[in-house]
Amino acid sequence: MRSLAVAVALSFAASHAVAVEGMWQPHQLPAIEAQLKAAGIAVDPKALKELTQYPMNAIVGLGFCTASFVSPMGLVVTNHHCAYGSIQFNSTAEKNLLRDGFLAANLGDELPGEPTLRVYVTESITEVTDKVRADLSDTMSGRQRFDAIDKNQKALVAECEATKGFRCDVYVFHGGASYFLIRQMEIRDVRLVYAPAEAIGKFGGDIDNWMWPRHTGDFAYYRAYVGPDGQPADFNEANVPYRPRSHLKVQPAGVKEGDFAMIAGYPGRTNRYRLSEEVGDVISWGYPTQIQRFKDLLAIIDRETKDRPDAAIKYAGAVAGLNNGLKNFEGNLEGFAKIDGVGIKQAEEQAIIEWAKTNDPAGVAGFDALKSMLAQTRARRDRDQLLGLMAQSGALTTAQTLYRLAVERRKPNAEREVGFQERDEIRIEGRLKQLDRRYDPQTDRALLTYVLGEYLKLPAEQRVAELDRWMGGDESPTSALLNERLDDLYAKTKVGDLEQRLKWFKADLAALDAESDPLIAYAKALFPASLRLENERKSIAGDETRHRPAWMATRIAYAKAQGRVIYPDANNSLRVTFGNVMGYRPRDGVSYAPFTYLDGIVEKHTGKDPFDATQRQLKAIADKRFGPYAVDGRVPVNFLADLDITGGNSGSPMLNARAELIGLAFDGNYEAISSGWIFNEELTRTIGVDVRYMLWVMDAIDGAHRLLEEMGIKPAFAE
Amino acid sequence: MRSLAVAVALSFAASHAVAVEGMWQPHQLPAIEAQLKAAGIAVDPKALKELTQYPMNAIVGLGFCTASFVSPMGLVVTNHHCAYGSIQFNSTAEKNLLRDGFLAANLGDELPGEPTLRVYVTESITEVTDKVRADLSDTMSGRQRFDAIDKNQKALVAECEATKGFRCDVYVFHGGASYFLIRQMEIRDVRLVYAPAEAIGKFGGDIDNWMWPRHTGDFAYYRAYVGPDGQPADFNEANVPYRPRSHLKVQPAGVKEGDFAMIAGYPGRTNRYRLSEEVGDVISWGYPTQIQRFKDLLAIIDRETKDRPDAAIKYAGAVAGLNNGLKNFEGNLEGFAKIDGVGIKQAEEQAIIEWAKTNDPAGVAGFDALKSMLAQTRARRDRDQLLGLMAQSGALTTAQTLYRLAVERRKPNAEREVGFQERDEIRIEGRLKQLDRRYDPQTDRALLTYVLGEYLKLPAEQRVAELDRWMGGDESPTSALLNERLDDLYAKTKVGDLEQRLKWFKADLAALDAESDPLIAYAKALFPASLRLENERKSIAGDETRHRPAWMATRIAYAKAQGRVIYPDANNSLRVTFGNVMGYRPRDGVSYAPFTYLDGIVEKHTGKDPFDATQRQLKAIADKRFGPYAVDGRVPVNFLADLDITGGNSGSPMLNARAELIGLAFDGNYEAISSGWIFNEELTRTIGVDVRYMLWVMDAIDGAHRLLEEMGIKPAFAE
Repeated sequence: MRSLAVAVALSFAASHAVAVEGMWQPHQLPAIEAQLKAAGIAVDPKALKELTQYPMNAIVGLGFCTASFVSPMGLVVTNHHCAYGSIQFNSTAEKNLLRDGFLAANLGDELPGEPTLRVYVTESITEVTDKVRADLSDTMSGRQRFDAIDKNQKALVAECEATKGFRCDVYVFHGGASYFLIRQMEIRDVRLVYAPAEAIGKFGGDIDNWMWPRHTGDFAYYRAYVGPDGQPADFNEANVPYRPRSHLKVQPAGVKEGDFAMIAGYPGRTNRYRLSEEVGDVISWGYPTQIQRFKDLLAIIDRETKDRPDAAIKYAGAVAGLNNGLKNFEGNLEGFAKIDGVGIKQAEEQAIIEWAKTNDPAGVAGFDALKSMLAQTRARRDRDQLLGLMAQSGALTTAQTLYRLAVERRKPNAEREVGFQERDEIRIEGRLKQLDRRYDPQTDRALLTYVLGEYLKLPAEQRVAELDRWMGGDESPTSALLNERLDDLYAKTKVGDLEQRLKWFKADLAALDAESDPLIAYAKALFPASLRLENERKSIAGDETRHRPAWMATRIAYAKAQGRVIYPDANNSLRVTFGNVMGYRPRDGVSYAPFTYLDGIVEKHTGKDPFDATQRQLKAIADKRFGPYAVDGRVPVNFLADLDITGGNSGSPMLNARAELIGLAFDGNYEAISSGWIFNEELTRTIGVDVRYMLWVMDAIDGAHRLLEEMGIKPAFAE
Repeated sequence: MRSLAVAVALSFAASHAVAVEGMWQPHQLPAIEAQLKAAGIAVDPKALKELTQYPMNAIVGLGFCTASFVSPMGLVVTNHHCAYGSIQFNSTAEKNLLRDGFLAANLGDELPGEPTLRVYVTESITEVTDKVRADLSDTMSGRQRFDAIDKNQKALVAECEATKGFRCDVYVFHGGASYFLIRQMEIRDVRLVYAPAEAIGKFGGDIDNWMWPRHTGDFAYYRAYVGPDGQPADFNEANVPYRPRSHLKVQPAGVKEGDFAMIAGYPGRTNRYRLSEEVGDVISWGYPTQIQRFKDLLAIIDRETKDRPDAAIKYAGAVAGLNNGLKNFEGNLEGFAKIDGVGIKQAEEQAIIEWAKTNDPAGVAGFDALKSMLAQTRARRDRDQLLGLMAQSGALTTAQTLYRLAVERRKPNAEREVGFQERDEIRIEGRLKQLDRRYDPQTDRALLTYVLGEYLKLPAEQRVAELDRWMGGDESPTSALLNERLDDLYAKTKVGDLEQRLKWFKADLAALDAESDPLIAYAKALFPASLRLENERKSIAGDETRHRPAWMATRIAYAKAQGRVIYPDANNSLRVTFGNVMGYRPRDGVSYAPFTYLDGIVEKHTGKDPFDATQRQLKAIADKRFGPYAVDGRVPVNFLADLDITGGNSGSPMLNARAELIGLAFDGNYEAISSGWIFNEELTRTIGVDVRYMLWVMDAIDGAHRLLEEMGIKPAFAE
């Protein structure tokens, strides 16, 4: 392996340093200016920390994905898989936009996105560590710490959101070592403008997911709308396109091997600073058990929706998510099989602890305390995993959300539980409205039967009394009794009725307590347990805010002593990663090129999903209708760069040295999945859809000439 | 695809021309001298046509594989998979040489190879076309033509074999356009000298079979022994190592990317000059049906030998063969899915036919006649396929061989059927002796039940009356009756008894006719059918000797008119192919390097068969005990060159520009399997085991220092 790395490194040694790992907070970028310049950046690295300047003010979040403005008229580009929910939301059996793609002929034809869709434009990021931690003392219990932090966070959020149209959140960095208040304009009227056919946007499907070489046209366009006053507004025909302060310049020439590339976006979660024991736990228990669970769930969905296409379409998103997770977990285990992950982490820890013994003893204490906490959570992990899986039941989740909302509504807004404040009600309502599109009682019941059946196998000390009582009454719960309960539940509940759901949404707690619907009764019966379990979690989280920051502070100090800057683990906040366009060597004897081309689509085409290229596209390739998008007679499709991204970065703009759009990040490579825990410099790559492929598809295949012109690109195939 | 080829080609354009396809007869080499020199050959191409000079006199055949002399003491190197039968023959549950490998401490410890093992040293190749075809006329029937050719061939062989210790055969080229008498010294005492453990020799097993990147140490050593008089002799302790006229010089420095490489060996069969209809038939019928049959057979063997390791070991060879065939057939279909094979052949045919209409009308007539013949055989192909599969039954094959031998023995030797002449009896006896090692009655019966069950589904016109009568008696045969027959057969037959088999081998026809053993009775009952079917085959073959040569003569003339030389399809005769060491691009975005290294073994190692490297090897790699075999700190394991080989070439020495040994060919690559029909210049590669890996394993792992010294290599790790 070593020699391969050397070979890859050598091929760029002449012009570029190999990029280091890092999901950098924008304000950290000036500190690593030398590295950015060595990699080839052409804009001033200091400009990247200014959120209200180009390019950072063109980068937006979708909550679960990243996107960017690409026109002065609020046109937003992101991944096809990030727009999947909205495409699905607008699809019917007769008008299958997933299959056929969608292109709005004009503004008036643009379709409302799915109800919870938002575009978040980050306005400011302010450190609030002192304010959040102001009331903490070492004598407080875990729960007291949690509540003290929670109270201060809510106050900061409430104050920040006083101006309507903004969403504010306090983000936790380094497990609580620092907190930042992030203020984002929340655009609520977001419409689907254009998505290629699934045969392009999801070419390769689950088979190619995480894989290179890749040939996926994973892009789609939204448009952000605001009220005539320029302020965020609910969907309304009178709304007008939002005019962003700036938008990304599209660079139709793309990049070539070795070129600088960077990404700004919202990576969701990494675990780079976890304890060796935590790594050991996911290897020996977390991933193996989740793999089995996910396989079981997939088999159930497959069985229940077979020959019922309407039901199948409702679970398409769930299946994609489960498959994605499954491949991720398996990839993690494969990655860990090649390295001694626990050993690497242990060696790292030991070095830091040795240093900390004299330089920062508090860190050693924090480390030891974290290890004790791990032992506690390990004892309940089987239960917690199953309780988490109960969320697979749309029925249960809906009822519990409704009941909890009614409970929280009785409190002053500032004291309500996170996720159930006034600001959250619109999202809850959106999910209620959307339930029909992802809920099939037969499948829901089968999934719940499985999860509760597994729950019944738990030892007594991990059982939840209220759940046992709901299933068994006075008797000890059994599969037979569970079946009776579920028979009754699904026969009688009206959760499948939108009108009823919205009535419950508006109902107060007394009304719900009096409700005879067995699903609401379930939520009521389980509510004390929910609170108890929640208290457990909050106590642990509170303890963690004491020990994890202590340990992280030591790690940061240790790194600083070595002249290194530490970036925080991903936490859905805006980050920048940079590097160069380059392939990799996945294994002995094999090299992956940094670019794929249209030829590869023809090679992969089988005529069967997920390798069922459209005839229109195959013909354009055969006819070499490439226009200006070809390089040496070939149109690049996807490309690789050694950037450090993770889930949440999907849809992130990939920028060249001058911060111009050269593609969209949409995946990481399979060989590097375990980089979420331990970064692998040799193998970690970002997979992006090349801007030339996006433009070619829009121009030569789908005739999206209006959009091209809006983005400042002159179409080559307009009639 | 095109652009990839261009890229590969360019990378060698500076120093070498890309090799053309071709399995050249040695005497053709002077005619392509310019191409050989362009590829980089350093020896005089004319020397390669001299079979009694270096290097050609060091190349030997094993009948089904190729090998070469590598010491003055008759040491022979070939593939591990070519020595598999002999390693298996000497293996027992207690002394498992397949698993553990074998190294004879000295000459006296060398083990007899399996009974039919021979080393064939080609002495001369003489064209005998005129003699073979002397008695033919256009008025003869197919059968008459067959017999006339057969008679002349036998006479030539008998004359040639008058000197004892030689084997002579007449080889058919271009479907009968030319015949060559090949005279080979037949060395009968061949002993197993050394084979690495299966974990090296078969590393990657069926999973890696046909695949690149590859890490298989597919080599083993035999030694040829002769009587004290220097003449071939049966195994005898008094025998002495054979002293070949020359032996290959081993080049421990190996080769590097771009270097010239060539192979001399015995490729078995290609179909490059088949009609477009024949290509269409294998695509639409041949491969798909054989794939199903082979899968069925494998499932049966798996089912019957499960939990019976002794039975499983008996069918290890059959399983390997079936898996190999299966992967081959599937690879052919995958290859054909990427090209319009029939269309390519049709275009080629049309061009030739257009030319022939004026230049060689006989060829057009031949072409049309071949097409008519195809229509005939197509009508009986299901039956013929099943009759062929009956050979999977060791019991049936043994009985039919014994019966036929008894019949043939009543004729003068010269008139006996090919395969049943005096010269063949030693091989027949060898197979009879060896039957126990590959015959398990339970499995044999299950296989036969399947094949005959499938036979019962044939339409009436394809049924064989004698077989129906054997199964059903006076009744119409059914599965139930078949089962009764087989119950009786396997309960009573003594075919499992070696002594009985050898008695039958010595028995005359009258004795066999009187034999009550139901298996011999079966052979007797089916004998008239065998003769009838044989007559059918011979008639067709006779007709083919008229039409195929006419068509091939046209093809040769057409090529000549274009300034090209045509090599004949492979036919187990000695051929030379040449080219350069180079990787390939299997698909968009992926490049395969021409060399793999020891690192790759560690990467692939899972601890489970077939990726279960030995601890000894893993430790040597970890300790970097590489000695002089490393290049830039890495030991090459396998390598690629764009040479044109096929089954039968296995074990062939790979030679550098100075005709020194640089490795052994052992496989072709999966992407090019369909090159057996239509050569793919971009994708066709030979996979060889690198001489440096062979020497490293022998030196650092297995301590085969005696052999290294014998080959002129000074061991680096001798104590």
